[in-house]
Amino acid sequence: MPNTIRVTIWNEFRHEQQDERVKRIYPAGIHEAIAAHLRPHPGIAVRTATLDEPEHGLTQEVVDQTDVLIWWGHIAHHEVADHVVDRVHKAVLGGMGLVVLHSGHYSKIFQRLMGTTCSLKWREAGERERLWVVAPGHPIVEGIGEAIELEEEEMYGEFFDIPEPDTLVFVSWFTGGEVFRSGCCFYRGKGKIFYFRPGHETHPTYHNPQIGRVILNAVRWAAPVRGPEITWDNVPPREPLQK
Amino acid sequence: MPNTIRVTIWNEFRHEQQDERVKRIYPAGIHEAIAAHLRPHPGIAVRTATLDEPEHGLTQEVVDQTDVLIWWGHIAHHEVADHVVDRVHKAVLGGMGLVVLHSGHYSKIFQRLMGTTCSLKWREAGERERLWVVAPGHPIVEGIGEAIELEEEEMYGEFFDIPEPDTLVFVSWFTGGEVFRSGCCFYRGKGKIFYFRPGHETHPTYHNPQIGRVILNAVRWAAPVRGPEITWDNVPPREPLQK
Amino acid sequence: MPNTIRVTIWNEFRHEQQDERVKRIYPAGIHEAIAAHLRPHPGIAVRTATLDEPEHGLTQEVVDQTDVLIWWGHIAHHEVADHVVDRVHKAVLGGMGLVVLHSGHYSKIFQRLMGTTCSLKWREAGERERLWVVAPGHPIVEGIGEAIELEEEEMYGEFFDIPEPDTLVFVSWFTGGEVFRSGCCFYRGKGKIFYFRPGHETHPTYHNPQIGRVILNAVRWAAPVRGPEITWDNVPPREPLQK
Amino acid sequence: MPNTIRVTIWNEFRHEQQDERVKRIYPAGIHEAIAAHLRPHPGIAVRTATLDEPEHGLTQEVVDQTDVLIWWGHIAHHEVADHVVDRVHKAVLGGMGLVVLHSGHYSKIFQRLMGTTCSLKWREAGERERLWVVAPGHPIVEGIGEAIELEEEEMYGEFFDIPEPDTLVFVSWFTGGEVFRSGCCFYRGKGKIFYFRPGHETHPTYHNPQIGRVILNAVRWAAPVRGPEITWDNVPPREPLQK
Repeated sequence: MPNTIRVTIWNEFRHEQQDERVKRIYPAGIHEAIAAHLRPHPGIAVRTATLDEPEHGLTQEVVDQTDVLIWWGHIAHHEVADHVVDRVHKAVLGGMGLVVLHSGHYSKIFQRLMGTTCSLKWREAGERERLWVVAPGHPIVEGIGEAIELEEEEMYGEFFDIPEPDTLVFVSWFTGGEVFRSGCCFYRGKGKIFYFRPGHETHPTYHNPQIGRVILNAVRWAAPVRGPEITWDNVPPREPLQK
Repeated sequence: MPNTIRVTIWNEFRHEQQDERVKRIYPAGIHEAIAAHLRPHPGIAVRTATLDEPEHGLTQEVVDQTDVLIWWGHIAHHEVADHVVDRVHKAVLGGMGLVVLHSGHYSKIFQRLMGTTCSLKWREAGERERLWVVAPGHPIVEGIGEAIELEEEEMYGEFFDIPEPDTLVFVSWFTGGEVFRSGCCFYRGKGKIFYFRPGHETHPTYHNPQIGRVILNAVRWAAPVRGPEITWDNVPPREPLQK
Repeated sequence: MPNTIRVTIWNEFRHEQQDERVKRIYPAGIHEAIAAHLRPHPGIAVRTATLDEPEHGLTQEVVDQTDVLIWWGHIAHHEVADHVVDRVHKAVLGGMGLVVLHSGHYSKIFQRLMGTTCSLKWREAGERERLWVVAPGHPIVEGIGEAIELEEEEMYGEFFDIPEPDTLVFVSWFTGGEVFRSGCCFYRGKGKIFYFRPGHETHPTYHNPQIGRVILNAVRWAAPVRGPEITWDNVPPREPLQK
Repeated sequence: MPNTIRVTIWNEFRHEQQDERVKRIYPAGIHEAIAAHLRPHPGIAVRTATLDEPEHGLTQEVVDQTDVLIWWGHIAHHEVADHVVDRVHKAVLGGMGLVVLHSGHYSKIFQRLMGTTCSLKWREAGERERLWVVAPGHPIVEGIGEAIELEEEEMYGEFFDIPEPDTLVFVSWFTGGEVFRSGCCFYRGKGKIFYFRPGHETHPTYHNPQIGRVILNAVRWAAPVRGPEITWDNVPPREPLQK
C-alpha cells in the first residue's frame, strides 16, 4: 500500500446546482461531503473532480496520480466521454482502486467493468434502509456495528444484474419489502472495486459518520498493491521442451 | 447424473409426535410432506429415515444407496450418533448430495462440513418471509418467480456464520427488519450441498408448492456426477524429473 | 433445462481455408469437428455458423433459437460486427449459454462479458498440456478422469486477466513451465459462460474424445433455466411504508 | 488493523531435533527461520511456540494475545490435544488470523476449519516448484514478481480436497507434471486464513526472501479487524410486526 493514498472524488455535480432540495443537503456538493470523511486522515490526500470540468477533471495526469477513484453519477452518465471511460478502465485494470457509489451502478465505467447491465429495481419513497454486515472479518467493516441504519433512503432491489461479488460485505433491508447486495467487492486485473449502495441525492446519507467510515475503509482496501509486473503475449519457455 | 436419483429424506420426527400444533400441520411428519413434492417425478426414488430408527435409519447400506440426502433436525441434534455423522460426512465428500433444511443449520453434519459455528439470529413470531432470487440463471430457481412469499415463518437473521457460499441463490427479507442468505450452494469434495432456510415446524411451509419446487431442483442439482476417481498420497512423476 | 438443447457452433473458419496444415486436421472446419461430438446425442440439436456468412450466421432469428452458443475465433475478432456482438451479449444476459474456446478469449463478446482485457501469455511450440480437475463434483467433469493429457498444444500462461471464475474446474500444466486456469465457469445475468482453453488450430485437439466430452458437458451445464422474469426499474412497495 | 500485530509462530519442531539433514538447514528450528522474516518489521511482535511445550505453548493466555497464528506441523498432528484445537478454532472464528504452511494441510485445526479431508498428492523428489500469481492486485503479492521459483521442493498435486478458496492467489507448477492451488485465502467467522504450500523440512525454503515476504504479507492481511460484535440467538424485532 502506498504511504499516502491519493484519492480523487469524482462527482457529476448537477443535482446540487439544479435542485434546491439537494443544494440544501449538499451545499458544496456530494464530493465535498465525502471528502470531509477522508481529509482528517493523515495518509490520505484528497482531490475532487466533476463532470463539467475539462476532461471531466480526469485528465491522464490526474488519473496517473490517483490511487483510488470514488465515483458518484446519476442523470448524466451518457455525457461522460468514452475516451475518459477508456482511460479510467485501463487505470483500474492497472491497479487503481475504484469505489462506485449508489446510482453510479449505471455509469459507463461500472457497466464496462462488470460486463452486465447493472440493472436493478428502485423506488424513491424515503423508506428505511438497514445494511447488515455479512462479512464481519473484512477490513471494510472496521469500526462498523452489525448493521447501519439509514432513516430515509431510495430503495434498490434485487435482482441486481452484476457478476457475483468476489466478496459480499453488506446486504440491505428496505421497509417496502426488498433486499439488496449493497456492499460488493470485485477484483479486476490488478485493481479492486467496491460498490456501495447508499447515497441518494435527496437524503443526507453522506453526512452519516458510519457511511463515511465505510468509504474510508473502502479507500484503504482498494489502494493499489505493488504487485507483479505482468508479461503478456509471446513468451519463451522457462523449462526445456525436449524430453 | 444417475438415471434415477435415489433420495433419502431424513427427519428428526419429534415435534410431530410431541406437539399437537405441529402434528396438525404435518400429521405424517415433515419427511412425508417433503416426499410428496418428489414422489410424482419419474427419475426420483424416495425413501425416508428418522432419528429413532436403528442407526437413525442411516445404515451404511442406506447411505451407500443414497444419491441425495435431505436433512431436517432441530431439538435433538446431539442425539445423532457421531459414527453416523462420520458416515454421512464421508459420503458427502465422496459425491452424495446433501440438502440441509432450516434448523438443520445446527446439525452436527452441517457444522462439520462448514467448519464454522453456523450460528444466526432467530425469532419465532410468525412474520412474513420473502425469498428474493439473486442467481436467476441457477438450476435451483427453475420454475420459480423473482421472489417466494411465505406469510408466516420463523425469522433467521445475519450474521449467519458460514463460509461464503460458492453460489448464493436466495436472500430473505423479514418483516421485523432482518435479512438472511437463505439459499446457499457449497461444493465440498466431490459432493454438493444446498442449505435452504425455510421450514419451521409450526408453519405449513413444506406444503407450499414453490418450496417443494426448490427442493426438487436442489435434489437434481446436488445429484452425484460420475467424475474422476482421485489418486491420493504418494504418486510417481508423470514427466521426467531430470533435465 | 429445455427438452432439446439447441446449440449453435460459431467458427471464424479462416485458418481451415487458408492454411494447408490446418485444413488437413480439420477438413470440414473446426465447427464440424466439435459438432461430431454433439450430434450423436438425442436431446441436442446442432447448427453451425461462420464469420463470412451474412450477419456471421448469427441473425436475430438464429440467436433467438439458440440455447447454447459455442465460439471459436482467432485472427479476425475485429471483423465481427459490433451489432452482432450486442445481440449475443444481450442473449447471454437473457439466459443463452456461451462456451468460449481457446483463442476466443480475445473475442469481442468474451471481453465484453468479462470487463477485462482477457490477456495472457502464449507460445506456439507444440508442448504437452495436462488439464487437472480441481472441481471433481462439477457436472462439466462427468466422465472425465483426474487429468486430460494433450500431447501437443499451444501454451497459454498466467496471469490470465479475467475476473476470478465463479467456479474453477480445470488448471493446466505445460511442459515449458507455465500453469493456466483452463476451465472457468461464470454466471452473468441469467446466462452461464464456460471458458475452455484447449484447441489451437494446428493441433487435432477437437478430435480428442475427452475434449469432446467436456464440451458436451458444458453445453448441458450452460443450457438455459426457466427461471424468474425479472422486473426492472421503478417498482411499488410490497409492504406498507407507513408505520 | 491493530497498531502492533502480535504473531505467534507455532512449529511442531521434531524434524529439526531428530534428523541431521533438517537440523543443518534449520538449526534453530523452522519457527526461527520464519521469525527472521518478521522480526525486523516494527509493528510486528513475534513469539514462538512448539508442540512439546506445556499446552503446546498455546495456553489460553497466549492465544488471547495472538493476532495471527502461523502453523507448521507434519508428523505429529495427532499429538496436538483436542482442547487446544478447540481453543484455536474458537479464536480463529473470533477474528484471529491463521497462516497454515505446507504439511499443516493435514493438521487438526486446518481440517476442522475446512470441513474436508484436505488430502492431496505428494512426492518427495526435490523437483522445481514455480508459484504463479493469479491475483496480482491482492495484498499478499505486494513486492512479489509474477512467479516465485524454488529449485527444490516436495511436490503437492491436485485434487486438493479443500473448499474452493475465497480468493486464489498462487497456482504452482511442478517438474513432474502436476499443478497445485498453493496460495489460498479463506474467510471463516471473523477470521482470515491463508494456506501457503511451500516449505518441506528438507529444503531451505523458509530462508528464501520471497517466501518470507509472502508470509509477512499474509500476516498483515490476516490481522484482525475491529468489526461488529455479533448478536446471536433470540432477538427482538427492529420493526413493528403488525401491519
